[in-house]
Amino acid sequence: MAAFREIEGGVTAPLGFRAAGVHAGIKGRKPDMALIATEMPARVAGVFTRNRIQGATVHLCRERLAGGTAHAVIVNSGNANACTGEPGREDARRMADLTAQGLGVDPATVFVCSTGVIGVRLPMDRVEPGITKAVSALTDDGGPAAARAIMTTDTVPKEIAVELVVDGKPVRIAGMAKGAGMIEPNMATMLCFITTDAAVEGAALQRALADAVELSFNKISVDGDQSCNDTVLVLANGAASAGVLDEKHAAWGAFREALRHVTLTLAQAIVRDGEGATKFVTVRVAGARSNADARLAVRAIANSLLVKTSWYGRDPNWGRVIDAVGYSGADVVEEKVDISFDEVCAVRGGRISEEPLSRMEEVLNRDAFTVAVDLHIGDGQDVVYNCDCSV
Amino acid sequence: MAAFREIEGGVTAPLGFRAAGVHAGIKGRKPDMALIATEMPARVAGVFTRNRIQGATVHLCRERLAGGTAHAVIVNSGNANACTGEPGREDARRMADLTAQGLGVDPATVFVCSTGVIGVRLPMDRVEPGITKAVSALTDDGGPAAARAIMTTDTVPKEIAVELVVDGKPVRIAGMAKGAGMIEPNMATMLCFITTDAAVEGAALQRALADAVELSFNKISVDGDQSCNDTVLVLANGAASAGVLDEKHAAWGAFREALRHVTLTLAQAIVRDGEGATKFVTVRVAGARSNADARLAVRAIANSLLVKTSWYGRDPNWGRVIDAVGYSGADVVEEKVDISFDEVCAVRGGRISEEPLSRMEEVLNRDAFTVAVDLHIGDGQDVVYNCDCSV
Repeated sequence: MAAFREIEGGVTAPLGFRAAGVHAGIKGRKPDMALIATEMPARVAGVFTRNRIQGATVHLCRERLAGGTAHAVIVNSGNANACTGEPGREDARRMADLTAQGLGVDPATVFVCSTGVIGVRLPMDRVEPGITKAVSALTDDGGPAAARAIMTTDTVPKEIAVELVVDGKPVRIAGMAKGAGMIEPNMATMLCFITTDAAVEGAALQRALADAVELSFNKISVDGDQSCNDTVLVLANGAASAGVLDEKHAAWGAFREALRHVTLTLAQAIVRDGEGATKFVTVRVAGARSNADARLAVRAIANSLLVKTSWYGRDPNWGRVIDAVGYSGADVVEEKVDISFDEVCAVRGGRISEEPLSRMEEVLNRDAFTVAVDLHIGDGQDVVYNCDCSV
Repeated sequence: MAAFREIEGGVTAPLGFRAAGVHAGIKGRKPDMALIATEMPARVAGVFTRNRIQGATVHLCRERLAGGTAHAVIVNSGNANACTGEPGREDARRMADLTAQGLGVDPATVFVCSTGVIGVRLPMDRVEPGITKAVSALTDDGGPAAARAIMTTDTVPKEIAVELVVDGKPVRIAGMAKGAGMIEPNMATMLCFITTDAAVEGAALQRALADAVELSFNKISVDGDQSCNDTVLVLANGAASAGVLDEKHAAWGAFREALRHVTLTLAQAIVRDGEGATKFVTVRVAGARSNADARLAVRAIANSLLVKTSWYGRDPNWGRVIDAVGYSGADVVEEKVDISFDEVCAVRGGRISEEPLSRMEEVLNRDAFTVAVDLHIGDGQDVVYNCDCSV
């Protein structure tokens, strides 16, 4: 039995959070500015892009994370504020200052995220009134509006909320994300904001987030590119009045599991919304010499354009899969490799199986299927949630 | 002044070589079997795929390379004879045996290459009479026919011949290649066969080939995948009666340069023939911390689907270029990065330049252009010859 259940709503489902999504005019006519605010100071943790080129807001968030406390996150879409130098960093600080002023909180507790085109200064003449508008629009049920306002090429908003019990009291974890990738007009930035009314010790919160991101956002591959602005933030405000969670608390396992569910659901929603994607494909590698080898193999398969286009073409082309494993750098013994598409074995011991092609084609016609590779030379394993490539 | 000049013809341009291209019926109605034979024994050198999964013919060629001598190379297209186990290796040996029998030479001096679908046994009932037919069809000017017979999804045959002077005598180097890659129906196998009537010491020939491949076939990127069967062979038969070349010979530099020209011309022809390619794009990275860093950066750019589709869309999207550099693993200081499209500077010091977008768009409209990145933090450099992605 799962230690949590899904509930309605988005980032405002946990107590003490308000949110808003408004139109500032940074891009077209769609909402392009989101604000999440918490009544009481929240513990904050964050995970950021490993790209060496990082947007102004990533620098700002990293610095402010050291303070450990957040009151709000202000987000704009339509402009990434990346490769904009010191003026861009000033714009980011100005966004935080204005938000803090509107909320009456310390500017150092306001986090800022941007997503959109890179190399262009933010239109601050539109951003500034947009912030004022967002502060005025904050409501207890503004989560869905905020989830819409952070969309760029996303075709659907992505949000989820779950509830679990800590010290006999219900606590909630909720999240929203944006990201679609694959041939999107700008950058494939992934943003995710998680709120919880649990009280969590700061360092434990950071560890739990890193763990959840590793098992979710780090297991998806849409186009293989990693943007300058990828950011995941979690705010824990303790409004549920349960005890403070850390690894020693009896409910820690349940909290960690619920957090993993939130991030995995949002990560998979990003893959499903991949531009040019028509299929959701889970790629599993088992039996590798090590987990590192499994990771190499699973990434080579997931990033192979030849493999991804074969999925789109509904072609059970295991040759491309074994070829990708071969050049991945992972240790491989050809005669030991098994490959299957869902329940149909395509390759056994490095040789084509006796299964009729029609059975494999039937699997490839499914909207979602799993490609499983067993190298049979060790215990290493890894998984990637992936999509096909239709473009 | 170049130490060599281009001449007419293909692999039969050097003295003592005959070739043929015939239809064996392995695939459709096109020629699918090629044979190159030398009257006198040739020194042979080879470079093979680094893929851990290797076709039966790659195993056979590697073994026979140890003998140092070649009389012939028999090649089929339409079937890669890969992932076919011991029966596939027997088929490859049988191909060599039959060819040797037809030519009256030692089977151990016959090399075999296959390209096409993987995982399926060769139709030996068609391959065997095809070999007999190829032996009968050998002619002094069969180079172009052979170049056609090794094509798979190639739209044009790829061959070149050059002449240089060694010890006062004209010697010739010629080559043919196949490969197109990018969404091809089977595998993106690259095959290249080089003939020369120069006499070359065996170990020096291997070093010269490795050098030439490093600067040509290892600098191209069509789809980022590396097939199980990629093979480059060079046969030097000494028929020109010039002295034996090695690194100490006065003409060595000229020979090495001519060989580099042959491989680079064929490698670039493969990129130009890339499936879905409409543009030839040279990507250069300079000023990296090391050559290894430059290689990481240039590969990240060249393999980024977001970058390649932006080229197709004639979009001077330097943001995707700098983003790829950022996640490549190469050392980068954002404020030092310059990026240009041909003569137009797009980014200077990590910031967008003053150049009007229209000038960059003009470059992107060209059939061929160069994307140059200067990281300004060292002397490391590398280049990749690449194409856009229209599919």
